[in-house]
Order: sequence, then C-alpha cells, then structure tokens
Amino acid sequence: MEIRVIERVLKVNDELALEVRNRLREAGITAINIISAPGSGKTALIERAIPALRDKLRLGVIEGDPDTTRDAERVAALGAPVTQINTSGGCHLEANLVLRALDALPLDELDLIIIENVGNMVCPVNFDLGEMWRAAVVSVPEGHDKPAKYANLFRKTDLVVLNKTDLLPYVDFDMAVFEADLAQLNPGVELLRTSCRSGDGMAAWTAWLERVCGESPARAPG
Amino acid sequence: MEIRVIERVLKVNDELALEVRNRLREAGITAINIISAPGSGKTALIERAIPALRDKLRLGVIEGDPDTTRDAERVAALGAPVTQINTSGGCHLEANLVLRALDALPLDELDLIIIENVGNMVCPVNFDLGEMWRAAVVSVPEGHDKPAKYANLFRKTDLVVLNKTDLLPYVDFDMAVFEADLAQLNPGVELLRTSCRSGDGMAAWTAWLERVCGESPARAPG
Repeated sequence: MEIRVIERVLKVNDELALEVRNRLREAGITAINIISAPGSGKTALIERAIPALRDKLRLGVIEGDPDTTRDAERVAALGAPVTQINTSGGCHLEANLVLRALDALPLDELDLIIIENVGNMVCPVNFDLGEMWRAAVVSVPEGHDKPAKYANLFRKTDLVVLNKTDLLPYVDFDMAVFEADLAQLNPGVELLRTSCRSGDGMAAWTAWLERVCGESPARAPG
Repeated sequence: MEIRVIERVLKVNDELALEVRNRLREAGITAINIISAPGSGKTALIERAIPALRDKLRLGVIEGDPDTTRDAERVAALGAPVTQINTSGGCHLEANLVLRALDALPLDELDLIIIENVGNMVCPVNFDLGEMWRAAVVSVPEGHDKPAKYANLFRKTDLVVLNKTDLLPYVDFDMAVFEADLAQLNPGVELLRTSCRSGDGMAAWTAWLERVCGESPARAPG
C-alpha cells in the first residue's frame, strides 16, 4: 500500500521534472543539481563560481534549505539572481518546488542555473529536478568512507567534487580508499579536488561549469 | 491522500518505538539515539566511549548506515556487542529495524545501547526509535549555521555535541552565532565541545553517557 503511493509521488515528480527540463531547454538554460551532506561547501563553491564566470556565463541560483534564507543572502550579495526554497523541514527538493522557483528567476537573462539541494546525501538522489547535470560534493573532514556508505549518490552523478582539501593535513583521509570506492561505484566519473579557502581547484570547477553549458549530458535524467 | 498514509506509517512507528522502549526498560537498559550529518564523527565518539566506560557500564551499539558494515567492524574491533542495520539506501532508522536489532544483542549483559542513526540531519528527527535520550552531533567544519538551517534536529535533542574542535583554527566558525542560534532553538540544552582526535571533551562525553544511565529523560519521546 505505502509503496504504491510512493510510486505515484515519484511519477508526479518525474512529470514535473520533464516540465522543468523543457522550460529550461526552451530558454537555452543548462541546470546543475548539487547534492551533498550539510556543510560540505556547496554554497561556497557557488560563491566562488559567480565572480569567476561573470564575463562568460549569466548565472542564476536556486537555494534549497529546510530553514533560513542565509544561503540566498550570501549569493545575492555577489549580485547573482537567486531564489530561496525553504522546505519547512523537508529533506530534499522536488521538481514542483523548482518549477515555482523558475517563475521567480529572469530566465531570459540566464545561461546557467545552479540548484543547491538540501544538505542530505540520501533523499535528494531519488528526485529528478529537471536538471541536465548532477554534481556530488563531499568534503575531506567527512571522511574517505562516504562514497561506499552513501553509494547511491556517487553512482548517480556526473561529477564528484572533493572539497576542503586544505584540511587534508589535519584529518585522517585515505585518498586511495576514496578513489578505489569511487572507481568501483562510478567508473570514469570526473573527480575535482577543491578548496574554496585556498582557491585550489577553483579554475577546474568553473571550467567544468563552463564546459557542461555547451554539452549534452551522457547520463539519463534522475 | 499521501498525508493520510504518512500519518499511518508514523503511527505504526510510534507503536513499535513504545515496544522497543518497554523491552529496554524491562532489561534495565538506557538507549541513546545519536543523529548527525554524514561524517560528523558519530562512530569516533562511540569508539572513544567503549574503552572509557569498560569498567563502569556494559555498552552495546546499533549501527545504522545506508550501505556497508564498516562502522560495525570498527566498533566490534573494540570488543563491544554490535549490530549493523543496513537501510539499503534508506535515509533514517525506524523502530521496526531497532526492534529486530535488539534480538541480535545480548540484552541481559548490557546497561547502555548507543544507536548510531543514518548520517542525515533531517529525516531521522521524525522517527522515535524507542530511545530514552537523543544526542545531536555537529562538527566544526560543517559550519556554525547548521543549528539555524536544520532547526528541527537541534530543537528535539537532549544534548548537542560540537565535534572536531581541533579544526577550529583552520576553518571560519563563528562560535557566538552558533551558540546564539542554539540558545534560541533549545534554551538550556547541554553543549559539549569535543575532539576525538585530540581527546578534548572526551571525559565530559563519557561522563554524560554515565549520568543519563541513572536519570529519567526530561523530554517527551520522539
């Protein structure tokens, strides 16, 4: 009984995700869904991308959080169009929320929309938001065992960003285990090593954003 | 329609949580439900408690993860009875899973069971597992804004552990904002500052575990 209802909800979400995707395509916009645990540095990565891409791409942001508008305020301070979705305690974004967020963004003036999902490594994975690309972020202090433990996220992503590499000297992080687990879960997936604090890897991160704006995604939606 | 079904599922969970709680009380066991984001150091806190409490309390552990038995292996290596629950990608523990995990633990030989929930700051909050006490862990690199953003978790907890304090010199963490947000969400909640790496706060952590074994919880279940 419960399972049937869950299937219905997901079906409705997939239909709305298709609506999002069609609307983005008509407007010539590429959308990226960023998923990570709370505090992995999703907002910091977006903050770094805004000035770096200013002369190349017109970037808009959709911020998802259970509560507060703190992330949207950080992004707005950098001059990018932004919409905050508060899920009122909800654990993931859904396509219907993104569809409404699009109404609040100047689609005619954008090339790229970054959707920052709610901080959660599990639930967001199951909800297609209508994005073209998905990026998973994991930060060094979270530990090298995260891909193995939260396998679904790392299987269903186009990019893995290992963030906060400036903390590598201060924690026990086994890079070989991390890379081996990742290679098993998602062979050939692109991996960027970044630190928003030191600036390491920022050029590769913004180059990836630029590149996917001109490419068709290889992975099926969702 | 969906809402009705969700209520039904939660009701069933609450009934099973009561069953867990009754079984634990009959066995004279105190149970603690630890909730945090992935990689905040829940397992490390448990690893530190096992040898520290060895001569004082008989400690058992229930490990929750979407995948792998890595955490249970870490705990078992220290000689504590442990059961691993794999949720097969599920985002939180539920009372029915804990009820089955109890069957695999030597209840006659335990005073305290620590239940390590799935790494997730949102979903586990809504599921009573039959525990007597709840502890929320957040680690320094996750950022000072986590209580405000993930308010439900910090409202509904008996203890907050701020872990990985050894990383304070290397990240931007505003302790005043963190404490002010926490005080607003959960006035008077106990806050421990810990580092499993340096050992700071470990005595206070194990003292808290010892203390709650002899006390009745102030907060209503769930």
